Amino acid sequence: MTFTKPLTDLEIATKAKLKPITDIADSAKIPFEALEQYGKYKAKIDATKIIGKPTGKVVLVTATSPTPAGEGKSTVTVGLADALNQLKQKVMVALREPSLGPVMGIKGGATGGGYAQVVPMEDINLHFTGDLHAITTANNALAALIDNHIYQGNELKVDPRRIIWKRVLDINDRALRKVVLGLGGPVQGVPREDGFDITVASEIMAVFCLATSLENLKERLANIVIGYTYSKEPVFVRDLGVEGALTVLLKDAFKPNLVQTIEGTPALVHGGPFANIAHGCNSIIATQTARKLADIVVTEAGFGADLGAEKFMNIKARQGSFAPSAVVVVTTIRALKMHGGVEKSALSTENVVALKKGIPNLEKHLDTIRNFGIEPIVALNRFITDTEQEIDVILNWAKDNNIRIARTNVWEEGGKGGLELARQVLEVLEQPQQFTSLYEVSNTIEQKITTIVQKVYGGEGVQFTEQAKKQIAQIKKFGWDVLPICMAKTQYSLSDQPHLLGRPEGFTITVREIIPKLGAGFLVCLTGEIMTMPGLPKEPAALAMDINKNGETIGLF
Amino acid sequence: MTFTKPLTDLEIATKAKLKPITDIADSAKIPFEALEQYGKYKAKIDATKIIGKPTGKVVLVTATSPTPAGEGKSTVTVGLADALNQLKQKVMVALREPSLGPVMGIKGGATGGGYAQVVPMEDINLHFTGDLHAITTANNALAALIDNHIYQGNELKVDPRRIIWKRVLDINDRALRKVVLGLGGPVQGVPREDGFDITVASEIMAVFCLATSLENLKERLANIVIGYTYSKEPVFVRDLGVEGALTVLLKDAFKPNLVQTIEGTPALVHGGPFANIAHGCNSIIATQTARKLADIVVTEAGFGADLGAEKFMNIKARQGSFAPSAVVVVTTIRALKMHGGVEKSALSTENVVALKKGIPNLEKHLDTIRNFGIEPIVALNRFITDTEQEIDVILNWAKDNNIRIARTNVWEEGGKGGLELARQVLEVLEQPQQFTSLYEVSNTIEQKITTIVQKVYGGEGVQFTEQAKKQIAQIKKFGWDVLPICMAKTQYSLSDQPHLLGRPEGFTITVREIIPKLGAGFLVCLTGEIMTMPGLPKEPAALAMDINKNGETIGLF
Repeated sequence: MTFTKPLTDLEIATKAKLKPITDIADSAKIPFEALEQYGKYKAKIDATKIIGKPTGKVVLVTATSPTPAGEGKSTVTVGLADALNQLKQKVMVALREPSLGPVMGIKGGATGGGYAQVVPMEDINLHFTGDLHAITTANNALAALIDNHIYQGNELKVDPRRIIWKRVLDINDRALRKVVLGLGGPVQGVPREDGFDITVASEIMAVFCLATSLENLKERLANIVIGYTYSKEPVFVRDLGVEGALTVLLKDAFKPNLVQTIEGTPALVHGGPFANIAHGCNSIIATQTARKLADIVVTEAGFGADLGAEKFMNIKARQGSFAPSAVVVVTTIRALKMHGGVEKSALSTENVVALKKGIPNLEKHLDTIRNFGIEPIVALNRFITDTEQEIDVILNWAKDNNIRIARTNVWEEGGKGGLELARQVLEVLEQPQQFTSLYEVSNTIEQKITTIVQKVYGGEGVQFTEQAKKQIAQIKKFGWDVLPICMAKTQYSLSDQPHLLGRPEGFTITVREIIPKLGAGFLVCLTGEIMTMPGLPKEPAALAMDINKNGETIGLF
Repeated sequence: MTFTKPLTDLEIATKAKLKPITDIADSAKIPFEALEQYGKYKAKIDATKIIGKPTGKVVLVTATSPTPAGEGKSTVTVGLADALNQLKQKVMVALREPSLGPVMGIKGGATGGGYAQVVPMEDINLHFTGDLHAITTANNALAALIDNHIYQGNELKVDPRRIIWKRVLDINDRALRKVVLGLGGPVQGVPREDGFDITVASEIMAVFCLATSLENLKERLANIVIGYTYSKEPVFVRDLGVEGALTVLLKDAFKPNLVQTIEGTPALVHGGPFANIAHGCNSIIATQTARKLADIVVTEAGFGADLGAEKFMNIKARQGSFAPSAVVVVTTIRALKMHGGVEKSALSTENVVALKKGIPNLEKHLDTIRNFGIEPIVALNRFITDTEQEIDVILNWAKDNNIRIARTNVWEEGGKGGLELARQVLEVLEQPQQFTSLYEVSNTIEQKITTIVQKVYGGEGVQFTEQAKKQIAQIKKFGWDVLPICMAKTQYSLSDQPHLLGRPEGFTITVREIIPKLGAGFLVCLTGEIMTMPGLPKEPAALAMDINKNGETIGLF
């Protein structure tokens, strides 16, 4: 008996025979004048040159509360699109673009996996078309302009202790979390405390992903609050007068990126905001462009349905004026066993009891999707360690409860492994959907947060710290309370306590801080320590990366 | 009488009718498989797919000691190439790529000017093909990996007080010159003093520009010294084992960028190291690729001949194993008047006496070029304020001294304004040149520096500070003294004192510090305060930049 070492994602992606991006553009009916090639297999699309209305139906892929390794949401998103393509549908994928920080830090790009990947995998996971670099640059140009304004006389009377605009790098760099800058004496600047976030946590990333046009991008940039004056009045980017320059720095990045799946399905990969302090979805401009080009757009949102899907509905869909027509909830037997109390180290062992105990987590996420007026479809994403008995438990549960379910095996089989799911999705798309918002933006901040906690997390209520109460009062004073809420919460539990697995009940959520993001157009609501600059592990992924003798990249996962 | 407002460089560049980059590639006989398009008017070239030997002759464009506004060296470089093109020569331009910092800070891109520009001007001055972003990322990934190494146990025993690897941003940001990072307690890192440089000052930029292949790039990266241990032994990138990952981050950027001049001459714009703490020339890989494709390659080096040309000869040409066949020294009547003692505010007024008094500066730079065995050609670059009488003074001086001179008016006329210069260059290229190195790398550090001071600057000798003496001893101990010297000196004077204009004599140069750059393969010799992170002015250029209603950039200079 011989074993073959399974291929890595990079090896599979490298072996794939890619079509020239001009062929992909042709197949998607993208006019030549809208196409800007970046190498042979990537292109930017000038969205203003794509004529027509965004009429394509949106299929949102979300998930149950994830294990640290994730449940394969991007992989299912890509595989589902490939399956729909196999079924002769006019389909496009719309995905977030990866951040280099995690790529260099912990193993794992963000381009799907196995035979359900967007390619060229290596380029997309590294610099791609430079979008994140443009966002880093715009973010840091703004920071430099702020400190320079203070250094040059501080006409706006910005209080250096109340600057909230941080610098960013697209790197996991723990040492930059808290810094003191402006040291070295009078000619070097004005000393103050500061810190760096990772680029995907920049408000400019959120702005970029929610802007509906270049003009709207500039308006949103102008609205960003960078800090407060000595008399505690907000200071906006428009007060500095640099929104034009920031827009110039972002205008090329703002064009959606066209790539392809391994099976040649066209994919737009554009924008990638954090799913905690931001909304965790690809750009509205990419989704809307895809909706002009295709009948079905398959897209995803970060973390579980309590985070990504909720924000997709309440923030992205609202700001983009569209609604999803179908929602797929990805789950795995591993994840459900974890929610049934199994330790990470034992997830590969059959455990029907724990599995049954974990199903309520899935049930809550399905209820959430139904709260938005949409009948969800469960995608049971196959892992090699799943047993027949375990699979039967899930299938029987679905049958008993009249729940749409499909098994997916797209990592191994590509689109073929997603055909069952694709057929279910097509059936749902045939049915009329009654999308309903969970709250109105005109509700009070407290009402909006309570609605999310009760209808999405399944909790009882909300506690606000004294600090949060003060901030709410200030936000009301400035008239900013009419914005939707962007919850920053642990992804591991439906509650704000990571160890509360399954479907916890009777809990309250503690809101510690509320941060207005006026450019993005939402209020970030912090419910615990949120890490906005990751650190590197003891053995960073970078140590494995290299160029071999043929000039090819190796060790990228 | 009506006046027409002259067009800005951006307006001229925008009005230019560009050829598709595929046509430019065809005209330069670049095989299709080597071409990677970046939009319609930019491409990267896979240099490994350009067959043939680098046999093209190199024409180096340098200058007299400049005014703060510069003498139009890039403009003459582009105009000369266009003129040679008009004369049916097979010619390419090889230029440095601009840094965004100065573009956002003080008015002025770096793509030539008027009708002698490389285009698309806007793209090249903004993110271009992302090379500088890749260098920023590689530089900062290394910094994060160093701090992470210390945080994770510091196996290499790196002394946090002796880390010399700084972070970089491609932004003018004075507040980052001196920082304290790693603050916030045990989980945030190890506090230490640090600072940020501008990206073009990164040793990775120098490495990138001097590497002769991707393999050589990796070797050089491995050789970078990032700091010293507690027992003062050097710590190399290879000790951290991350040269592979850094090479992966740089491998696409390492491909030269193909663009065109307004007149359609092919141009490689690639790499842009500082001309003080680095060598100030475009990449060797671009120059050598151009030499494979064209019979004549016109290129430039930063600042005056005392800095850029000296380093071109002693560092770039040496490491690239080639020699220039002709050298053009650009000067202006304005610059010579300044060297004759005229205040900046009065440079527009005719002043024949000052002009004559300033000519010795030009004479010294010509002597320098002759010291390298090459007969220089003076390019007198026209400014609107030049008077006929002033021009006659220069032309008569050249005639009397048997000096090759040509007037250029390329800003206004493009290649046509460079025809006289082009004919002179062709005459020189017909003659055999006897290029000689000024020193051998096997000379002592003191000998090498003294040679530069005496033969290039025209000074008497060198003084070493106690610190420099210590450093020289240490460098010898480690066996690093066999490297060429990279002088960091003011560009405004031939001496190390900016106010000593004209052709100062009898001065000594004070060497304050010697910094080994083992990746780049040179020893940086500091002769004064060198600013490696510029600041923004009171009215940054960014304030004028905007997007107009048609989505076009305005206010970029």
